[in-house]
Amino acid sequence: MNMSRTRRERLVVIGGDAAGMSAASQARRLKNPDELEIVAFERGHFTSYSACGIPYWVGGDVPDRDRLIARTPEEHRARDIDLRLRTEVTEVDPDRQRVRARDLESGAESWTSYDKLVIATGARPIRPDIPGMDAPGVHGVQTLDDGQALLDTLAGTRGRRAVVVGAGYIGVEMAEALINRGYEVTVVNRGSEPMSTLDPDMGRLVHEAMEGLGITMVNDAEVTKILTDDDGRVRAVATEDRDFPADVVVLGIGVRPETTLAKAAGLPLGPHDGLLTDRSMRVRGHENIWAGGDCVEVLDLVSGQERHIALGTHANKHGQVIGTNTGGGYATFPGVVGTAVSKVCDLEIARTGLREKDAHRVGLRFEAVTIESTSRAGYYPDASPMTVKMLAEQRTGRLLGVQIVGREGAGKRVDIAAVALTAGMTADQMTTLDLGYAPPFSPVWDPVLVAARKAAAKVRSSS
Amino acid sequence: MNMSRTRRERLVVIGGDAAGMSAASQARRLKNPDELEIVAFERGHFTSYSACGIPYWVGGDVPDRDRLIARTPEEHRARDIDLRLRTEVTEVDPDRQRVRARDLESGAESWTSYDKLVIATGARPIRPDIPGMDAPGVHGVQTLDDGQALLDTLAGTRGRRAVVVGAGYIGVEMAEALINRGYEVTVVNRGSEPMSTLDPDMGRLVHEAMEGLGITMVNDAEVTKILTDDDGRVRAVATEDRDFPADVVVLGIGVRPETTLAKAAGLPLGPHDGLLTDRSMRVRGHENIWAGGDCVEVLDLVSGQERHIALGTHANKHGQVIGTNTGGGYATFPGVVGTAVSKVCDLEIARTGLREKDAHRVGLRFEAVTIESTSRAGYYPDASPMTVKMLAEQRTGRLLGVQIVGREGAGKRVDIAAVALTAGMTADQMTTLDLGYAPPFSPVWDPVLVAARKAAAKVRSSS
Repeated sequence: MNMSRTRRERLVVIGGDAAGMSAASQARRLKNPDELEIVAFERGHFTSYSACGIPYWVGGDVPDRDRLIARTPEEHRARDIDLRLRTEVTEVDPDRQRVRARDLESGAESWTSYDKLVIATGARPIRPDIPGMDAPGVHGVQTLDDGQALLDTLAGTRGRRAVVVGAGYIGVEMAEALINRGYEVTVVNRGSEPMSTLDPDMGRLVHEAMEGLGITMVNDAEVTKILTDDDGRVRAVATEDRDFPADVVVLGIGVRPETTLAKAAGLPLGPHDGLLTDRSMRVRGHENIWAGGDCVEVLDLVSGQERHIALGTHANKHGQVIGTNTGGGYATFPGVVGTAVSKVCDLEIARTGLREKDAHRVGLRFEAVTIESTSRAGYYPDASPMTVKMLAEQRTGRLLGVQIVGREGAGKRVDIAAVALTAGMTADQMTTLDLGYAPPFSPVWDPVLVAARKAAAKVRSSS
Repeated sequence: MNMSRTRRERLVVIGGDAAGMSAASQARRLKNPDELEIVAFERGHFTSYSACGIPYWVGGDVPDRDRLIARTPEEHRARDIDLRLRTEVTEVDPDRQRVRARDLESGAESWTSYDKLVIATGARPIRPDIPGMDAPGVHGVQTLDDGQALLDTLAGTRGRRAVVVGAGYIGVEMAEALINRGYEVTVVNRGSEPMSTLDPDMGRLVHEAMEGLGITMVNDAEVTKILTDDDGRVRAVATEDRDFPADVVVLGIGVRPETTLAKAAGLPLGPHDGLLTDRSMRVRGHENIWAGGDCVEVLDLVSGQERHIALGTHANKHGQVIGTNTGGGYATFPGVVGTAVSKVCDLEIARTGLREKDAHRVGLRFEAVTIESTSRAGYYPDASPMTVKMLAEQRTGRLLGVQIVGREGAGKRVDIAAVALTAGMTADQMTTLDLGYAPPFSPVWDPVLVAARKAAAKVRSSS
């Protein structure tokens, strides 16, 4: 008998959604069960689902919940991942390399030791601390359970007035979902324009388009209270100025990193309360702990500073990197440029890089230009207008950011700028990019190139 | 009186379409008529029109010819450009800095001297030297006059059988146009699959899709003769194997640089018979002569060799660069990566960079991968399948090329690869690109990233 046989390592994963289960799956691909045991804890009922898809399920575009589940618990278990659902990790003990978990059904707690730990605890929705927030009829939309609860409310409510609180991605997507369900929708927004991830001049275009879709957009309005009727159910959303009657309220205010466990364990958190990792997604200062997904901060390659961005595509990439590294390989996640795309009905909204206020905040001086163009050659059917705003650094002309608002074909054009930002291109270099051209796809000068020409000229003339 | 006043310079432009008139317009923007006289010769009736739009006009998507004209002769003249239509330049005399032009109405010839000359003579269609090529009912589609002649034939022909010769961009676009007009369409193609700008395995997908659209695709077939009936009109297209009955024949075989004048003047031509320029679009060895558009060769930034690509978007960029330089400014055109996009009905076809045979030809070793993905999140309505092929260099992993065949949302994704190629990225670097993600726009891993992951893995495992 060979006594020197390597002990089987144990990888513990906290959180069964995109980052955690991508990490587990990738580690399993690289190491078989004889070499690596994988235990994953998930406090909910589901694994590996698309939270980003919830608005489309609520809106009816996606017919049922199970379509949003990329991989079921059974599928994970079939690949030798010891998945423990409805089991919440309540403590991480880095010194003794163990986690304590509670079975949410029985209440029993026990410790599990790890050789390597992955923290993928995700994010929690921001819920303003105001009266009535927990009233029946007020819904978040972070989890599949949230989505089902909202659908149950919609099915059981006769009134057709919906108020969405918040006008970021989730807010505008939920506005679309509720319009599609036949609701009268009011969006109550704290900022001066919807989509605060855009500059206000571009947010204004979203505002106008939303009103064109029949959505009532209320800006500069802070929600002070959720008003309820005699049986405690929501009846209106109150701001300082007025009340907005509501049969259902959806919160789309955004999320914060869920790092309660990490904080208690003394792990390093950044300015946004997200875990801080190195490029291999290893928690800084902790050799055996990795973290990814909505609970971490990521490096913004344009500003050079850490940000928190809750987005499934990043979570999947983090998981892939973590799984590769914990599986004995080597991979890194260099950072983000802040690309995001969304839509409200047929309006497409996209952004990447820095807004004006981001550039100011990090001490970058820039020129900003805005152009109007079309998605296809002007003479081609369904050519639709598109507005592109571009920021380029003064002197160097380096691209800093792009925002796009338009119709079909507008949104994914932001990828051109995302790659150019990653490569550190200048607006002037972008003017000669060899982009796909044919009349059904683009004018001879792609709208992004038109913006680049104008930005490059403005940088030159101000130098 | 100030005798030292600078003499007014004269810029002569040969060719009134995209490159020539973009150059003229940009030069005029930079210099007023007191400083610079601009004379432009065009042998046809039109200026600044979109030849790329002709298939969509013939197919009925664009209702009339004038929609394809970006700027009329009158508009150019209003901007102090001395435009001489129906006037053909018959000789360029670089030694004496003059051109000889013939008025095609009167036949009168005269010399015009220049300080700076722009050659933008475009391309001419390849017409195989076979019997019957000039028969009534056989049409090219290079010019607006060609398009009108074809439409006249379609209007006057009772038969509904169309044969398209050639299966490149023009061929497949004309197949779509004729299908839209209700014709039975047969495409006769010399190559083994349509779209020889793709590798044959990707061309095969186009072939299958075209047949699904009801187009008869005949590959490996060389046209030997156009057969005519008693009155001389086309009745069939003959290949070695068989005859294809035809009421109308459209030639979509491609084009060659129109450099007859340049050659006679002793200007430098490249291996594809296109004019050779430097980066400022100045003809090599000729201080006062610029050239751009379909009559020049361009540097392929991926292969490092010269290519001929007839495409409106390049012609416009060349014109912009030439106009800037002849107008006293400074601009360069660095080269192309070979991006092209097209469609046949709802099938989108795109490519950039090198095909397998291009890479072989220039001595590059590569790994090639092909993946299947979808245009949107798999659960989102109208998510459609998409095939992405990627070539990456062995050892370095540098991206060499991408080909995409799919439905809505597939084509313009090639821009991601076009920018990455320009920036010299590796497949591995591409795997972490921060591209726009939301369920209506993309799966969490964009199809281009899925291909990059697979290519990067293959490069690693073979290193």
